[in-house]
Amino acid sequence: MSPQHTEFVKRNESYVASFGGKDALPMPPAKKLIVVTCMDARLDPAAHLGLKEGDAHVIRNAGGCVRDALRSLVISQRLLGTREIAVFHHTDCGMLTFTSDALRRIVKDAAPGDAAVAARVDEIDFLEFEDLHASVKEDVAWVTGEALLLPETTVTGWVYDVKSGRVVQVV
Amino acid sequence: MSPQHTEFVKRNESYVASFGGKDALPMPPAKKLIVVTCMDARLDPAAHLGLKEGDAHVIRNAGGCVRDALRSLVISQRLLGTREIAVFHHTDCGMLTFTSDALRRIVKDAAPGDAAVAARVDEIDFLEFEDLHASVKEDVAWVTGEALLLPETTVTGWVYDVKSGRVVQVV
Repeated sequence: MSPQHTEFVKRNESYVASFGGKDALPMPPAKKLIVVTCMDARLDPAAHLGLKEGDAHVIRNAGGCVRDALRSLVISQRLLGTREIAVFHHTDCGMLTFTSDALRRIVKDAAPGDAAVAARVDEIDFLEFEDLHASVKEDVAWVTGEALLLPETTVTGWVYDVKSGRVVQVV
Repeated sequence: MSPQHTEFVKRNESYVASFGGKDALPMPPAKKLIVVTCMDARLDPAAHLGLKEGDAHVIRNAGGCVRDALRSLVISQRLLGTREIAVFHHTDCGMLTFTSDALRRIVKDAAPGDAAVAARVDEIDFLEFEDLHASVKEDVAWVTGEALLLPETTVTGWVYDVKSGRVVQVV
């Protein structure tokens, strides 16, 4: 696999050519919405939720884990006026397939004898989960109970199905 | 602003109707690529980089800060085979407009006398930056020097211009 970055400028050309009007969009999200979802390559949240540029903050990480997004959530709410959080996890997620201990072992085995690597990876909670729907409910409960987030936040939890493209509300 | 989540199922319908074929996409990103970029509402990385579902992991947080993405980067490289990281920051970014101290003050002032809130927000580094291009270079250097990431990673750094839709390589 050759590096992809050599293609970025060329692939960007058609977007630039049809950009007109989007230069006037303001920084705060028009819909006062934050979408939190997984980094998974199969997801295109703008496409499957019909969001346009300017509509919503989109936070993505492994699993769509809200606990890993606290810094961004606080910035979004306190500085940029968002008042709704929609948490999306998805079927066939990688987070259902491993444990933190197993991943730490992979990292350590690739750097045998490196005590610094071992110590650092042992500090990371990889936030995997065993039950998809339960993980969505837990994340929504976490947001609702988090004192650094605004109590007037509307919070919903969803599952995206990678086999159909469909979103289903869980909570 | 009424809640947006009541619109998600309706807005998802046309995506579901034209989903055909994407149900067979595998979990690992076809292009072995991770894009790290900001949560900013004006960005649609799939559109402005011409990425399709299945191509790349997309990690988004406030600023596109790689240090805040380590958990996800390790999972992507060690479990899902990615070998290239492209870091995007963008013009007119909110991260250029505040300091961690000022944001902590906003959170504390909204919860007067709440010692627990004050203690928790004081622990958060909001990872703001003062110089856009320098921040991209720093993030690329951080990835390159991070012992938990694979040394064979191809790393590039970019700026996205919210006034033109154009991407420009910095490093």
